[in-house]
Amino acid sequence: MTDAENLTVESPRRQRGGRRGRRGEAAAELKAVGPSPLRHIRNPYPPFAIFSEDEIEAIHRTSLQILEEIGIKALLPEAREIYRRAGAEVDEGEQRVRLDGALVEQSIASIPSRVRLTPRNPERWVEVGEDAIGIVTTGGPPHATDLERGRRGGTLSDFEDFMRLAQSFEIIHIIGSPVEPMDVEVRVRHLALTNAALSLTDKVPFVYSRGPQAVADSLEMIRIARGLDEAALMQSPSCYTVVNANSPLQLDVPMSQGIIDFARMGQLMILTPFTLAGAMAPVSLPGALAQQNAEALAGLVLSQLVRPGAPVAYGGFTSNVDMKSGAPAFGTPEYAKAALISGQLARRYRVPFRSSNVNASNAPDVQAAYESQMSLWSALLGGCNILMHGAGWLEGGLSASYEKFIIDVEMLQMMAAFFVPERVDEASLALEAVREVGPGGHYFGAQHTLARYDTAFYAPLLSDWRNFESWRDAGSVDATGRAHNIYKKTLADYEAPPMDPAIREELDAFIARRTEEGGADTE
Amino acid sequence: MTDAENLTVESPRRQRGGRRGRRGEAAAELKAVGPSPLRHIRNPYPPFAIFSEDEIEAIHRTSLQILEEIGIKALLPEAREIYRRAGAEVDEGEQRVRLDGALVEQSIASIPSRVRLTPRNPERWVEVGEDAIGIVTTGGPPHATDLERGRRGGTLSDFEDFMRLAQSFEIIHIIGSPVEPMDVEVRVRHLALTNAALSLTDKVPFVYSRGPQAVADSLEMIRIARGLDEAALMQSPSCYTVVNANSPLQLDVPMSQGIIDFARMGQLMILTPFTLAGAMAPVSLPGALAQQNAEALAGLVLSQLVRPGAPVAYGGFTSNVDMKSGAPAFGTPEYAKAALISGQLARRYRVPFRSSNVNASNAPDVQAAYESQMSLWSALLGGCNILMHGAGWLEGGLSASYEKFIIDVEMLQMMAAFFVPERVDEASLALEAVREVGPGGHYFGAQHTLARYDTAFYAPLLSDWRNFESWRDAGSVDATGRAHNIYKKTLADYEAPPMDPAIREELDAFIARRTEEGGADTE
Repeated sequence: MTDAENLTVESPRRQRGGRRGRRGEAAAELKAVGPSPLRHIRNPYPPFAIFSEDEIEAIHRTSLQILEEIGIKALLPEAREIYRRAGAEVDEGEQRVRLDGALVEQSIASIPSRVRLTPRNPERWVEVGEDAIGIVTTGGPPHATDLERGRRGGTLSDFEDFMRLAQSFEIIHIIGSPVEPMDVEVRVRHLALTNAALSLTDKVPFVYSRGPQAVADSLEMIRIARGLDEAALMQSPSCYTVVNANSPLQLDVPMSQGIIDFARMGQLMILTPFTLAGAMAPVSLPGALAQQNAEALAGLVLSQLVRPGAPVAYGGFTSNVDMKSGAPAFGTPEYAKAALISGQLARRYRVPFRSSNVNASNAPDVQAAYESQMSLWSALLGGCNILMHGAGWLEGGLSASYEKFIIDVEMLQMMAAFFVPERVDEASLALEAVREVGPGGHYFGAQHTLARYDTAFYAPLLSDWRNFESWRDAGSVDATGRAHNIYKKTLADYEAPPMDPAIREELDAFIARRTEEGGADTE
Repeated sequence: MTDAENLTVESPRRQRGGRRGRRGEAAAELKAVGPSPLRHIRNPYPPFAIFSEDEIEAIHRTSLQILEEIGIKALLPEAREIYRRAGAEVDEGEQRVRLDGALVEQSIASIPSRVRLTPRNPERWVEVGEDAIGIVTTGGPPHATDLERGRRGGTLSDFEDFMRLAQSFEIIHIIGSPVEPMDVEVRVRHLALTNAALSLTDKVPFVYSRGPQAVADSLEMIRIARGLDEAALMQSPSCYTVVNANSPLQLDVPMSQGIIDFARMGQLMILTPFTLAGAMAPVSLPGALAQQNAEALAGLVLSQLVRPGAPVAYGGFTSNVDMKSGAPAFGTPEYAKAALISGQLARRYRVPFRSSNVNASNAPDVQAAYESQMSLWSALLGGCNILMHGAGWLEGGLSASYEKFIIDVEMLQMMAAFFVPERVDEASLALEAVREVGPGGHYFGAQHTLARYDTAFYAPLLSDWRNFESWRDAGSVDATGRAHNIYKKTLADYEAPPMDPAIREELDAFIARRTEEGGADTE
């Protein structure tokens, strides 16, 4: 006999005349596994580590050497001035800042290990850091794609639809900028993005670091939506930005400005070097990670020099290029190792760790799925606290895919269920049930089963577990096709979260005024 | 700036006028990452554990209680007699055997923690146990399926094609029975299967435990192929079988016979209870695992009573059913937890651990990929030593899929590359390269890169990393479509491994004689 035999069994529901229902077609219908496992995700397991402490220390020491001996180029004069006042060696001609190890270690010691983010609906708070995980939509793609309309430049309408999807699934805690709305004029784009995020969702919004005026506008809108004054907002992280170093070893003007502005405003800044091994970083992973670490530390130091205790996170995004074409690759074995080691580095500094759910596929196909899974397992087992590009990322981040969004929601919900710890006690060990059923019996009718079967297991959103004949007779729709149907139905069923009319009015007035004033210079 | 920007980079090869090559179309062309990472896989990382030692002990104790107080039903009189002679309490009327904890612990202490399997080509030896991992094709499906011909009953021709695929990829170390050849008469089917495995591959073959005569025939063929006498074969594990308990708590006649025969012959026996939580085992995972553990221990004890030191493995196959339909599910969050906990149990006993690469999808689609990945990560991080159903399993094991075989080979190769440890030393930390390139530079031209780029990263078999336009212009073939092309090309390029003509002749004569004698009764 082999494992494949004897697979047909009868469930209590079927025995009692129930039917299988809409599995694989139902949108956003998820049976809770334990108490609210989707709203607040906690990793109950010890983080998985692939490097020894000595190996982590070797990377740490190398990155300190990089900062001391080579330094980083900081293009913003104010940033250099802040570093200089703290005792760094600044070469104004080269725009180069050299940081000694003691300054680095002392500065980052003030970083909070856990941050609570509170959006306009305070019930949607999310914590990141230590065992707490927040999941973010994808961010940044210039294109949108779905099976029906194909791949095209992103629009505000696409952006809004991704907001609606993000609002519809509990597993999405934090809003990214899922697609670039090319049809909105650049000077007012930040107003449209922030307005869509604040209107169509009540979750934690994202702010682009695209220049001080745009940041100030977005923060003002978030302040209005939360109904706080500026002093209160500064005490309560309500949004976040991502700052990418221009690897190797460079912080450009808007990025440096973003670090400074977000620290001053007490909002979360995620410092993520974009270190593609073999291109913008050494081809060897330890070297690429030493450079990533140096860049991350430089930015984190700047944030803490501006305001000790400012909420920040350590972002790891090291991957490799295809050495045959130079194309970036994601979700590779090297990517998985880099994510796990980055988590170890972030934990060494007790800083919240950001990783990503990424892939390089051109279609929402099996490559997209297995590369994403490589990313997900390495991120989440490696102690990730902020999972960016959690849902919708395709094509190395050049497209936001509607179907991939649903596929990702399913994969994320599975990981959330995996993170619900199993309780081991007399009831769950079930000796009496085993005794009752005995050799050769079955458990469907057992009291132990009947008392638990409704909530025992994760109930999928997308996976179709019907037998082949039923699946074929229903049209042989594969998982990507089902994801398409689910995203459509989710949008059809979407309901906007309520907003106080006074806040709505104030937001509209602000947007109108800033639009009339010509919006903002962006960089 | 976001992560998605600035993705186009130039590689050294392109700079030097090279071309990208046939990535995504080439069959079986894999760049080795480090020294032979595919032929002999070792897990360099500490196994990932989700239960505390106390929780593992609670499961262990519960399973001993099950064996002492409830016992197992052993349908084969010889098996009961062996247990009885060792001191077990046997109820012949109920065919029930009760084992006390001391007898269990004492018996399993003789199990080898690591086993070397040697097939007819001795260079294809594979070790399983401790940090060593052997990968097996799928086994058991009654159907074969591919994109061109659809799903149909398996044939010998399909079986042979899967043998050819298994032979073609280094990552496959051990042959399963990938599809049931329905067109071969049952009484001689074992002869055809063993002949195909021995002729079309030179890797470790599988033997079904379908009755003593069929087992004896298959072992005789394997003995002939290895050119050993029976005494030498008994000292050198050359093949394996899988014994599934008939959960709950029952060992049927052919399965018990398989345990006894394989122990006597010194060949590897993998004891795998098929404990679907909520159907053949308690709905709570700790209970299902306690029952799995009891069943596994009962079978392992029997093997060691027959021959202390007989090579065996502990199989975990606990999954859950869809409680709405009763359909078995695979690659679920519960499955992943069960695999990890099973690994902890096997390690507690220092017995090689068998897990699987499974999914419940009806198509080689994203569901198949993400469910397989859930299985793969939990198996491999959890210390799996024998990965069954490694390549080709679809539809909960009811179909062997040609495309899925290729998809799995890619996923397995990625995991093998993930298991190549990163060396941390002065060269890999690359401080001098970082100094040479400096802020704002790039690494393509660096000596450090040029010396390493050819072997630095895993080069995919199936993943397509071309940019969207190139991929679209080449026909927008998704990963499943590419897997189809790769399997076809692999079959076209296949070359049979050489076999000594004298051995060929002896095998043919044996098959002819046994066919003439009417084959074997199977059970």
